[in-house]
Amino acid sequence: MTDTQDRPAQPSDVRPGEVTTELPDGFDAGVFFIGRLRTPWMQRQDCPRNARESTAVCTIELDARYARALTGVETCTHLLALYWMHEARRDLVIQVPRHHNEPRGTFALRSPVRPNPIAASVVKLLSIEGTRLTVIGLDCIDGTPLLDLKPYFTSTDSVTDAVVGWHAAHKE
Amino acid sequence: MTDTQDRPAQPSDVRPGEVTTELPDGFDAGVFFIGRLRTPWMQRQDCPRNARESTAVCTIELDARYARALTGVETCTHLLALYWMHEARRDLVIQVPRHHNEPRGTFALRSPVRPNPIAASVVKLLSIEGTRLTVIGLDCIDGTPLLDLKPYFTSTDSVTDAVVGWHAAHKE
Repeated sequence: MTDTQDRPAQPSDVRPGEVTTELPDGFDAGVFFIGRLRTPWMQRQDCPRNARESTAVCTIELDARYARALTGVETCTHLLALYWMHEARRDLVIQVPRHHNEPRGTFALRSPVRPNPIAASVVKLLSIEGTRLTVIGLDCIDGTPLLDLKPYFTSTDSVTDAVVGWHAAHKE
Repeated sequence: MTDTQDRPAQPSDVRPGEVTTELPDGFDAGVFFIGRLRTPWMQRQDCPRNARESTAVCTIELDARYARALTGVETCTHLLALYWMHEARRDLVIQVPRHHNEPRGTFALRSPVRPNPIAASVVKLLSIEGTRLTVIGLDCIDGTPLLDLKPYFTSTDSVTDAVVGWHAAHKE
């Protein structure tokens, strides 16, 4: 457990309109960091607002102990990567994103700030060398811990007509 | 931490051809269970093989402390649900799924057995009443712990031409 995981809420981090909740006293389960994401972005404010805005080639460095778990991954064109947004606070239920400026519930946003700061991004797999995967489609800071890789199945993971109503209205 | 999270590897659970790895001594971060999934399936063998095979109406029961985080979720047609496959072992790197019968790497499979047993499913949102969400698209046993809900954006989450080569070859 690092300092950042457990750091108490910083009142100065809360913008006007944002609301916190009291988190439970203890965790219910533990995760392993199974690798690291290497990206061109060193700070949160440098990251693309979403992964499809960037064509940057990034690297996923998987820990050696999981090397054999990549067997068959080379046949996949796309993967679902889950990673741990280790710099995010966890207690906000209402947030005011910098680029929208209106209060929204945490579960209506893709913000890294959430009770479990797990990000999910679809990446395009370019190549694998040993335990290094070269991909396009990440949006996080360099050094972000990896939690999981999954094959992306269009049959189950793709919905072509999903609507996020608040976002669609915002763009109009 | 429950017993099932920490239970040691059971040699009898490993099928011929399966390979384990030694997991790290400790966890790197902790997760909160933020709710429970209510489904019609009481045991793993009853669950649909994937979520799109089922049209069963299920319920997501979110803990009351996160109620306000649902603000705006009612405008979404689809959500990405992350949940914790709490009955799965975590140390297999090569697995022989019952219905494929060929060894594959863990990261080439959607099996619940993985270093971090986090499942990701796209669900169709039917309605919200308080902290109960009625959805279609879950595939897990009743009582599975919820980790996160995210708005599903077709623009970033949908890839319509992804190929999982080993799976496509298997079906031919």
